[in-house]
Amino acid sequence: MESFEYENRTKIVFGRGELENTGRIARGYGTRFLLVTGRKSARATGTYDRVRNLLEAEEINVFDLDNVQSNPVLSRVRDGIEAVKKHRIEAVLALGGGSVMDTAKAVAAGSVLEKGDVWDFFTGKSEIENALPVLTVPTIAASGSEMNGFMVITDEKNHHKLAAGSPSVYPRVSILDPVLTCTVGPDYTAYGGVDAVCHLLEPYFNGSAPSTPVQDRIAEGLIINIMDATGACIRNPHDYESRATMLWSAALALCGLTKAGVGDHFFPVHMIEHSISALFPVAHGAGLAALLPGWMTWWAEGNNDKVAQLGERIWQIRENDTSDAARKTVQAFRTWLAETGCPQRLSDIGITPGEHRNIAENAMKQAGIWNVADLYSVETIETILAYCV
Amino acid sequence: MESFEYENRTKIVFGRGELENTGRIARGYGTRFLLVTGRKSARATGTYDRVRNLLEAEEINVFDLDNVQSNPVLSRVRDGIEAVKKHRIEAVLALGGGSVMDTAKAVAAGSVLEKGDVWDFFTGKSEIENALPVLTVPTIAASGSEMNGFMVITDEKNHHKLAAGSPSVYPRVSILDPVLTCTVGPDYTAYGGVDAVCHLLEPYFNGSAPSTPVQDRIAEGLIINIMDATGACIRNPHDYESRATMLWSAALALCGLTKAGVGDHFFPVHMIEHSISALFPVAHGAGLAALLPGWMTWWAEGNNDKVAQLGERIWQIRENDTSDAARKTVQAFRTWLAETGCPQRLSDIGITPGEHRNIAENAMKQAGIWNVADLYSVETIETILAYCV
Repeated sequence: MESFEYENRTKIVFGRGELENTGRIARGYGTRFLLVTGRKSARATGTYDRVRNLLEAEEINVFDLDNVQSNPVLSRVRDGIEAVKKHRIEAVLALGGGSVMDTAKAVAAGSVLEKGDVWDFFTGKSEIENALPVLTVPTIAASGSEMNGFMVITDEKNHHKLAAGSPSVYPRVSILDPVLTCTVGPDYTAYGGVDAVCHLLEPYFNGSAPSTPVQDRIAEGLIINIMDATGACIRNPHDYESRATMLWSAALALCGLTKAGVGDHFFPVHMIEHSISALFPVAHGAGLAALLPGWMTWWAEGNNDKVAQLGERIWQIRENDTSDAARKTVQAFRTWLAETGCPQRLSDIGITPGEHRNIAENAMKQAGIWNVADLYSVETIETILAYCV
Repeated sequence: MESFEYENRTKIVFGRGELENTGRIARGYGTRFLLVTGRKSARATGTYDRVRNLLEAEEINVFDLDNVQSNPVLSRVRDGIEAVKKHRIEAVLALGGGSVMDTAKAVAAGSVLEKGDVWDFFTGKSEIENALPVLTVPTIAASGSEMNGFMVITDEKNHHKLAAGSPSVYPRVSILDPVLTCTVGPDYTAYGGVDAVCHLLEPYFNGSAPSTPVQDRIAEGLIINIMDATGACIRNPHDYESRATMLWSAALALCGLTKAGVGDHFFPVHMIEHSISALFPVAHGAGLAALLPGWMTWWAEGNNDKVAQLGERIWQIRENDTSDAARKTVQAFRTWLAETGCPQRLSDIGITPGEHRNIAENAMKQAGIWNVADLYSVETIETILAYCV
């Protein structure tokens, strides 16, 4: 185990019907709120109206930043910052998925900037030192943004999809009401599951520490829960217990707990996927699903043991030869993706080998910002992508 | 999964040599510190002198509350409160084990009381609403007090050993340097392992929620780590990786994560053990070890399935009959206790059946405070104790 600092500032309020406490909780953070929402679902399900009413019942003035899209864009963040300044907004409430929560965090951090530009946080030119209070009400189990200090935003003009983070943008409170996630369709339920599993697999495989038994067991336990619950939620969308398992596991998957102590690490599968979904209209979880089996096969070549450990502990795969065990593990993972209706390769999401160079070059912009350009190169990424066709 | 709120306010600074940062970190919380220590080990190992020097190098005035004993007592808490008031102390640093950390928390909460008495927090007569900042440097992996808002203190005059808790007494920062735990002898290494395992088993078995798959997997993963590492630390006391696994697992075991969502629950084994160690000179972990196999056997009679689940996931015990599986699970747990040199029954710690009534009556005082007097009675506890002879 390597040295680490761990702190998670978010208070979680979890359970059936906890949505009803949104107004009361929000009132502790201000009387002028920016309510950030996505394109449709919160309105279609009536959740938007419920939250707005709950806030107004507490005499909170509500200003909307609606229509946040998947792979959320910088221009919408700028719209939010403008609204905050114009209306003297005191806090930001995100009602939606990862895109909505990440936009809310970026607005919260960008709004308190006296000079400089919000995009500088993403390109590494400046650090977030302060932000308006952020509250979240996630409507899908996926990103884990409800319990961490990270956000991913796309500069749509330049196809840069970049991440930034700070202790200042940890949600002060996140209200996790599994009932809200019961209306998520089978495709996005599965993509959310893949995203959460990928958040666990990346530090599991990519940490520099030679031995991380505590982190491994926690990650494996969460992966088993997410895999089981993804299938159960697809089969029975209104099964509260499975939705609760998904929602809590996805939050824990990226709350920092399974990363703390794994040493130097980054998220190469996310890096490559961010390049893909910045260039193509692909859902983040679908992009990850198309990459993961191929990436794991490529990665296993130098690291059979760890892939075999995953296979033994998740699927009880036991083979004398660890390369056999690793191959069977990747196959078992493919089977899970197939059962949940996910893509398993790039061709499943319409990406051809002719695009690989472009994807790899775009990914390396993020590698530069993350200071991992020495670990991955355009050529390495092209090699990985060739495993994913 | 039941509804819950989860928040953990402690910042963890973990790693080899992190002790050296104690002064710098402490300086952020004041210039007049109460340094709480135990009876011998911090002085014998030189750690006390190192910490005192580190604090003084930051121009912090250090006042001692030393000689805190195992099963820490109320009179020493009162001594600490008096010192805080006399010397206008601003923050409390605990250097030691659970007794030292719990004493530090009680002093921190009691010192800011304008009226009333610190013992009222333990008897349920008043709630902790404020406290001086608490920092901890644990020197043993056991209690988990370094990452939670609980403390257990004994009113030695009346043999009452009671718990209290509040968000206010979460350590602001806990510095976890596994090197400090390398000098813990085999007996207390094992007792610490048993304490941490028991912190995981109590919510695992005693929660009211019918299904807690997320919490179960995390608890099982930590139990496996603690069991493996306890043996490794005893065999090779200076094995840093095993000490690191122990220290982080023990902190996580009672950080709230595996309790959140299990519903109504309390800690009956701890309740009974607190009665024992309030009446007899028994180490807390030894008392738990003497109770756990008998308690688990008694408990399994109505709950074979959950004990069998533990057995399957920890020891790969698979039987057609769950009562057979539960019996083998208890036997496997006994084997682990034996291998680590722990007691397995009350007679191993010199307690005879003639003492059962007295232990049960004393335990029921705590049951009354915890409002669980309807779940356990003197007779129930006597029945349980009969399984532990």
